[in-house]
Amino acid sequence: MQVILDLCLVPLGVGVSVSQYVAECHRVLQEAGLKHQLHAYGTNIEGDWDAVMAAVKRCHERVHEMGAPRITTTIKLGTRTDREQTMADKVQSVEKKLQ
Amino acid sequence: MQVILDLCLVPLGVGVSVSQYVAECHRVLQEAGLKHQLHAYGTNIEGDWDAVMAAVKRCHERVHEMGAPRITTTIKLGTRTDREQTMADKVQSVEKKLQ
Amino acid sequence: MQVILDLCLVPLGVGVSVSQYVAECHRVLQEAGLKHQLHAYGTNIEGDWDAVMAAVKRCHERVHEMGAPRITTTIKLGTRTDREQTMADKVQSVEKKLQ
Amino acid sequence: MQVILDLCLVPLGVGVSVSQYVAECHRVLQEAGLKHQLHAYGTNIEGDWDAVMAAVKRCHERVHEMGAPRITTTIKLGTRTDREQTMADKVQSVEKKLQ
Repeated sequence: MQVILDLCLVPLGVGVSVSQYVAECHRVLQEAGLKHQLHAYGTNIEGDWDAVMAAVKRCHERVHEMGAPRITTTIKLGTRTDREQTMADKVQSVEKKLQ
Repeated sequence: MQVILDLCLVPLGVGVSVSQYVAECHRVLQEAGLKHQLHAYGTNIEGDWDAVMAAVKRCHERVHEMGAPRITTTIKLGTRTDREQTMADKVQSVEKKLQ
Repeated sequence: MQVILDLCLVPLGVGVSVSQYVAECHRVLQEAGLKHQLHAYGTNIEGDWDAVMAAVKRCHERVHEMGAPRITTTIKLGTRTDREQTMADKVQSVEKKLQ
Repeated sequence: MQVILDLCLVPLGVGVSVSQYVAECHRVLQEAGLKHQLHAYGTNIEGDWDAVMAAVKRCHERVHEMGAPRITTTIKLGTRTDREQTMADKVQSVEKKLQ
């Protein structure tokens, strides 16, 4: 099962600046070989359900290892059985309607 | 790693009424033996990360099997390494502050 | 336009314990006279769109006034034009399917 | 109060394809003169709290007018009092950590 997932991980108890933790999550996604795209309020990821979810778990583990005692994460995720769809497809289908 | 997770699964392409799909997810959580609590905009679940995530995946599989061609899900999830905390603890710590 | 909204406000830069800020948001909702229900990962609120959104803004203002320099909030919200629906209706429609 | 907001609006009861509704929301944001950026699982918006929230409401109204009887929306939103921050700043602060 393929999934497109929007990940927004927020460490608590480490002050207001969270960019180093988000950067570390990007290294996790990179290491996992998953297609991903940073945006201003999260990171979009696409891939096989199990691979994507394993990476999300690894992000939590890694951010705790960096010293964050608490993490709250918001995820949006989509699956479909009617057809294959990539992150790029989703953006393009909206842009086509805007022309 | 323990997790507290808020699950809100929305099937698309099956009309406006989604309660039968939410009910099916509750059966999945029940079968998994996970502590869970329905509320007006989702279901809170607590347990081991892998067990909870396996149940979330099973919910997607089951709702697709019921005929929904597309699903979009919103999840909030929290982990902490400083102490153990249950769903009941979270509610109580707020209620204490309200007294 | 009526709305059912799930609010999860997270103050950053104030340590790991956030219950006093959540409690303050409950006072804001109380003062606004809005029907609301605390759960383990947020608070459900129901009411007129403008009244609910004014209360959400007031929560942000109040939590900043309490000293939180940064807030990240996750909201789920639903509107419908086909029929009226309360928070209690939503829970009951799932529970009926589980009987 | 400035806000950075991630909007993901999902119409129900209109089939599996939602791109025309997302496109309409972009027209609403355009008309409102708000800075916004489409991504694969939502749209980031930045601006004054009241202007952004008025646009979110207008999106719901417009999508209902297009025929969607039910809408469920997921929003992430951030405010801060310690400093000004744009959507571009947020992405850059992570990218700097990745160099």
